[in-house]
Amino acid sequence: MTLQIDSDGRLRHLLTLEGLPRETICRLLDRAGHIRDAALGRTTQRRSSLVGTTVCTLFFEPSTRTRSSFQIAAQRLGADVLNFDASTSSTRKGETARDTLKNLEAMGVRGFVVRHAEDGAVEALAAAAGEGTTLVNAGDGRSAHPTQGLLDALTLRQAKGPDFSRLKVLIVGDVKHSRVARSDLHALRTLGTGEIRVCGPASLLPDADTLAGCEVGQDFDAMLEGVDAVMMLRLQRERMEEGLIASIDEYHNDYGLTAQRLTRAAKEAVVLHPGPINRGVEITDEVADGPQSLVLRQVSNGVAIRMAVLEMLLG
Amino acid sequence: MTLQIDSDGRLRHLLTLEGLPRETICRLLDRAGHIRDAALGRTTQRRSSLVGTTVCTLFFEPSTRTRSSFQIAAQRLGADVLNFDASTSSTRKGETARDTLKNLEAMGVRGFVVRHAEDGAVEALAAAAGEGTTLVNAGDGRSAHPTQGLLDALTLRQAKGPDFSRLKVLIVGDVKHSRVARSDLHALRTLGTGEIRVCGPASLLPDADTLAGCEVGQDFDAMLEGVDAVMMLRLQRERMEEGLIASIDEYHNDYGLTAQRLTRAAKEAVVLHPGPINRGVEITDEVADGPQSLVLRQVSNGVAIRMAVLEMLLG
Amino acid sequence: MTLQIDSDGRLRHLLTLEGLPRETICRLLDRAGHIRDAALGRTTQRRSSLVGTTVCTLFFEPSTRTRSSFQIAAQRLGADVLNFDASTSSTRKGETARDTLKNLEAMGVRGFVVRHAEDGAVEALAAAAGEGTTLVNAGDGRSAHPTQGLLDALTLRQAKGPDFSRLKVLIVGDVKHSRVARSDLHALRTLGTGEIRVCGPASLLPDADTLAGCEVGQDFDAMLEGVDAVMMLRLQRERMEEGLIASIDEYHNDYGLTAQRLTRAAKEAVVLHPGPINRGVEITDEVADGPQSLVLRQVSNGVAIRMAVLEMLLG
Repeated sequence: MTLQIDSDGRLRHLLTLEGLPRETICRLLDRAGHIRDAALGRTTQRRSSLVGTTVCTLFFEPSTRTRSSFQIAAQRLGADVLNFDASTSSTRKGETARDTLKNLEAMGVRGFVVRHAEDGAVEALAAAAGEGTTLVNAGDGRSAHPTQGLLDALTLRQAKGPDFSRLKVLIVGDVKHSRVARSDLHALRTLGTGEIRVCGPASLLPDADTLAGCEVGQDFDAMLEGVDAVMMLRLQRERMEEGLIASIDEYHNDYGLTAQRLTRAAKEAVVLHPGPINRGVEITDEVADGPQSLVLRQVSNGVAIRMAVLEMLLG
Repeated sequence: MTLQIDSDGRLRHLLTLEGLPRETICRLLDRAGHIRDAALGRTTQRRSSLVGTTVCTLFFEPSTRTRSSFQIAAQRLGADVLNFDASTSSTRKGETARDTLKNLEAMGVRGFVVRHAEDGAVEALAAAAGEGTTLVNAGDGRSAHPTQGLLDALTLRQAKGPDFSRLKVLIVGDVKHSRVARSDLHALRTLGTGEIRVCGPASLLPDADTLAGCEVGQDFDAMLEGVDAVMMLRLQRERMEEGLIASIDEYHNDYGLTAQRLTRAAKEAVVLHPGPINRGVEITDEVADGPQSLVLRQVSNGVAIRMAVLEMLLG
Repeated sequence: MTLQIDSDGRLRHLLTLEGLPRETICRLLDRAGHIRDAALGRTTQRRSSLVGTTVCTLFFEPSTRTRSSFQIAAQRLGADVLNFDASTSSTRKGETARDTLKNLEAMGVRGFVVRHAEDGAVEALAAAAGEGTTLVNAGDGRSAHPTQGLLDALTLRQAKGPDFSRLKVLIVGDVKHSRVARSDLHALRTLGTGEIRVCGPASLLPDADTLAGCEVGQDFDAMLEGVDAVMMLRLQRERMEEGLIASIDEYHNDYGLTAQRLTRAAKEAVVLHPGPINRGVEITDEVADGPQSLVLRQVSNGVAIRMAVLEMLLG
């Protein structure tokens, strides 16, 4: 039993993919897959499973795109959505995050989608939540972004089939500061991925624990050889100011994915990126918009995954 | 007949509790009480009384929390909600508040929830509103915050029963600048409260008219003796810069509610605060989160009161 | 066939009124007229034609008022609305407008209401949109604001009847920088307006192409003689800083519509203004709030036109 799984094995909150049972992950992927298939078949009638339920996007760190994805997911389920931008609200009047949560909970909000700049902040809020309240971590610090990990897993599964043991997957870039990478690693491990490689400049690689079981290297070309999927990470331009990379150009030279480089991967290798893309930095236009790119598929899957998560937690 | 009550005795707008008939207040409290009981009994199906009606939160002064409470209330009634942040909109292009209102009215908005920094501004807008349009004052200047007054009254009634004549209630803090205090005073008087006490530093006490019928004092300990309810007010930290209080520490010493101080009140005395709380300033954690605190109950009641008000005005 | 009309003659996007067939314009005006009549007859039950459809207001240039009008229109049709303020979002993280659109499209947004400061930007986005996606131009640069042109045409038709060939219409002010004027001119021409006059200081008049077929002059009093409708434009106060007008006072003297001046027009002449009004600059209070003003009628018609447009494109 953990904070996110109750004693009956039921998912209470979704805070991290670390330690989440494989069955739970697979159930979420199955459900999201169904939702997406129905949508493609144009049978997307608005669902009604969350009619009468208020879902609040509670963002202590702004992110219009992730917020929008969750908002669309909740609306599709019939929920009422309250967007609470905690960076411009009563928190600025000195209210604690916990008090903000408890207040919104008292107003009748049952589901919270929370983003916070600090590691562990969402977990701390979940610990403070009342019995009927559920939280989804929409990204905290460098720790976790579980719905991104799930949508990436779904995207890989759609492209490569359910048997992850046959897959070689490469994660590239600023792994050190990336909650996306951490959640991807948890998902890939739990799903039994055959080989997980991690690649980036030494200054952007995390500690050994995070990389347990991965093949790690700094030579992008070498690491690309034969992989079935390349998961690119977004480069924060601030990394240059922090002295962690020498220049954007040099980063692109060493770790930018070009069409030519991509030929080193397996023939039908797929490319993922969590967005927003820095075109010409971590990925070229040709690759981002090319036939091997699943970038927009990831975005579509994001809504389906969030619907599946909200439905499981609140339905 | 006033601006808010029409010639048939029907509530047209809710601008202030001053002069509002006792029967109207009691009807609103009854209705909100029912809404809350239904919610606790988990029969909160989304109501449909306002389906097809657009409610606009028109805030000339930002307040995410109050706006959210009204938004949730309106959504629960099935209304479409338009959040119009008038501090970052066409008002900045020089449009008057009246023109903004008239425009939104022309777009088909029937209910307005208005907050404004100036005393009387909401009343002026109500005077300009067309026939089918109704306004709720969500706080104007230091004048009125009628739904807060109603939710505080409901909270007291739930805790202490309907006979206010037996109650001793103490209001503490910056009464002078507080629209909450003014609306509380109107509600308490109309409901026939046995004894109303007001306490705060001389610099934060209002004129004698506002305090008519109240017992007034500056010694918090003395004023606490035997009261059934303590209604704490929020301290604006700006008061120190304005020279109205010497320091936050001194204010806490003199007017901060601690668990020890609270023992002077009646045995089952309850504590209210409109939030957001300055923990450690006007109230300690121990009291705010203690068994006598009704702070979160107030927040829940706020949604119920706002549903009752919107339903009475627009249903 | 153009970008906005497909090979079957069906409206794909609404980008500009230029070249839009008269029948399409008339069908939109008829439909909006019906919607408005139904609303006045209080049979405004929420329509359900867009239930399950997500409409996104994607504003790269802020405009609370136009956004609100579209939001209300979409909500009335049962759509889910996502307000995406692109001036404070991932576009600031360096994402291109096209990527923002493609991402939202991948999330399942089918209708986009787009405002952009640059001429042609909305057209460029429409060219990038996928098959099931439709765009409405809510104003781009100085080029077009087609729903404003339509609502102005509807307002004139309601006031003066369907035969535009008998009408003399005068457009006054900063025509050069006005997308409203351009869309009005397209609508008036297509509807066969008898006489179109354009008036303003030389520095604020556009090129001859834009004014083709119009009578153009700088003497407001002379141009007013006998017109059936005066369409005033908003003056951007920045025009003074740019040296395009000498002073606000002088502008008001030369081109401000006063009650006295209005007597030069035909006896039942009507006055339009797209708002927000600079009271005392381009128009006096007496005229803006007088019996000949249709300013608020335009605002009401705006919602009806936008409902008709969204229904035609998405229904």
